[in-house]
Amino acid sequence: MIFRQLFDKKSSAYTYLLAHEQSGEAVFIDPVADYIEDYLTLLDHYGCKLKYSLETHVHADHITGSGLLKQRTNAQTGVNQQCGAVCADMQLKHGDTLTFGDHTIHVIATPGHTPGSTSFLIDDRLFTGDALMIDSCGRTDFQGGDAGAQYDSIVQRLFTLPDETLVYPGHDYTGKWVSCIGQERMINARLAGKTREAFSQIMNNLNLPNPKLIDIAVSANRKCGIQEATEALPQS
Amino acid sequence: MIFRQLFDKKSSAYTYLLAHEQSGEAVFIDPVADYIEDYLTLLDHYGCKLKYSLETHVHADHITGSGLLKQRTNAQTGVNQQCGAVCADMQLKHGDTLTFGDHTIHVIATPGHTPGSTSFLIDDRLFTGDALMIDSCGRTDFQGGDAGAQYDSIVQRLFTLPDETLVYPGHDYTGKWVSCIGQERMINARLAGKTREAFSQIMNNLNLPNPKLIDIAVSANRKCGIQEATEALPQS
Repeated sequence: MIFRQLFDKKSSAYTYLLAHEQSGEAVFIDPVADYIEDYLTLLDHYGCKLKYSLETHVHADHITGSGLLKQRTNAQTGVNQQCGAVCADMQLKHGDTLTFGDHTIHVIATPGHTPGSTSFLIDDRLFTGDALMIDSCGRTDFQGGDAGAQYDSIVQRLFTLPDETLVYPGHDYTGKWVSCIGQERMINARLAGKTREAFSQIMNNLNLPNPKLIDIAVSANRKCGIQEATEALPQS
Repeated sequence: MIFRQLFDKKSSAYTYLLAHEQSGEAVFIDPVADYIEDYLTLLDHYGCKLKYSLETHVHADHITGSGLLKQRTNAQTGVNQQCGAVCADMQLKHGDTLTFGDHTIHVIATPGHTPGSTSFLIDDRLFTGDALMIDSCGRTDFQGGDAGAQYDSIVQRLFTLPDETLVYPGHDYTGKWVSCIGQERMINARLAGKTREAFSQIMNNLNLPNPKLIDIAVSANRKCGIQEATEALPQS
C-alpha cells in the first residue's frame, strides 16, 4: 500500500494519502484546502486516481480540501452523517465499509470531540482524527463536544482493537507522528488508568482558547470547503 | 501480515513475530529464552511455521530464545556475521535479503551499539534493535560500541528511508511502542539537528551502569542461548 503522512504547519494537522498500488485507487483523509495542487501532484506521481476524500469530522482549525478535490478529480466525498455537512456525497455511519483496491475502510463512530467525529480503520492503521491523539485526545469544549462520550468512544471502540493497531491522529503539536493502541491504552496521559469521571474532569478544565479559525472553518467545512477555500487559493 | 509486538518486562525488551498469512511462514526477531512456550503457542494459534529466528545483535540484558526455537521448530537462526555468534545458521551481512511468504527482509548493518548491530526492514516496518530507539538510541560504551559509527548508521542508513517507515525498537523504558523515521529524524533528543561530534559527546558521557546480566547474557547469546537458557528454564 502507498501511504503518505502529510503535515500542515499552520494548524499542526495531519492529512493522509493511502492508495492500493495495483489498482491505483486512492483515498485522502482530512485534506487541507491550501494543498490541493500538491495533492494532485502526489496522485500523478504515484499514478493513482482518487476514489474517496474523507473527513474525520468538521474541523475548526483549517478548511477542508474535500470539495476542491471532488471538483478536480471526481472523487466522492464522505463524512459522518452527524456532521451536518450535507454537501458530502456519502453520509457515513458507524459500521459502514468502503473499499479501495483490496483494502477495506471500516467506519467507526467516535463521538466526543464533535458529535460526528469518526475514526477510519484500514488494515491495521487507525485514523483517529481528534478523538484519540498521541498521549492526548481532542478537546470537548465546543462544537457539541462531550467528554463522557469521548471517553466511551475511545475506551469501548478504540482501546478494544489489537494493541499493535497503529494510531494516526488528526493533529500533533509536539512532533509525534504515530503511536499504537497498546501504547495509548497503557500510557496516554489523559486516559490510561482513568475513570470516565476523572477523564471528564480533566477535559472540562482545560480552559483552552478557541482555535483562531473556528468561525470561518466550521462554516466552510459544512460546505465541504468550497466557497471559502476557492477564495483563499492564489489566483492563477 | 500477522504482526505481534511482545514485551519482556524484566529487560524492557521487545520481541516481534511476523508471519505471512497465506503461506503461514513466520519470523521472530529478538526472541527471549523465557518465553519459548508462549512463542510456540502463538505460532500454533496463527497456524504458522517458524522459518527464521533473527537477532538484531548479541544482547547484553537477556538471553536469546533463538537456539531453543531452532530446536523446537527447525527454524533457521540468523545474526550479523560481525556478532561472533558462530552457532547461528545464517551469518548475515549488509545487503542480504531473506523472504517469508511474499515479504522480503532487508538486512541493514547498523553498527555502533555493537559492531554486529543490524536492522531489518520488512515492507515499511524497520526493526532497529538497539541502534535507533524511540527518542533515544542504544548505548555505545561496551561490547565494542562506537558512538561515531552509530551516528553514521542511523543518519546515513536509517534516516534516509521514507519518513513514514515505522520504527520498532529493541527496547523502550518509557512505555512507547512505535515511532517512524520522520519523527525520529525531526525530534529524537540525541540525534535531531546534532552533528556527529555533538552526538558522540552525548553518548560518551552517559555514565550508565552495566546491565545486570551482561556477563551471563553476552556469553550465552554467542552460543544462541542454548546452554544457559536450557538451564534457566523451569524443569518439567
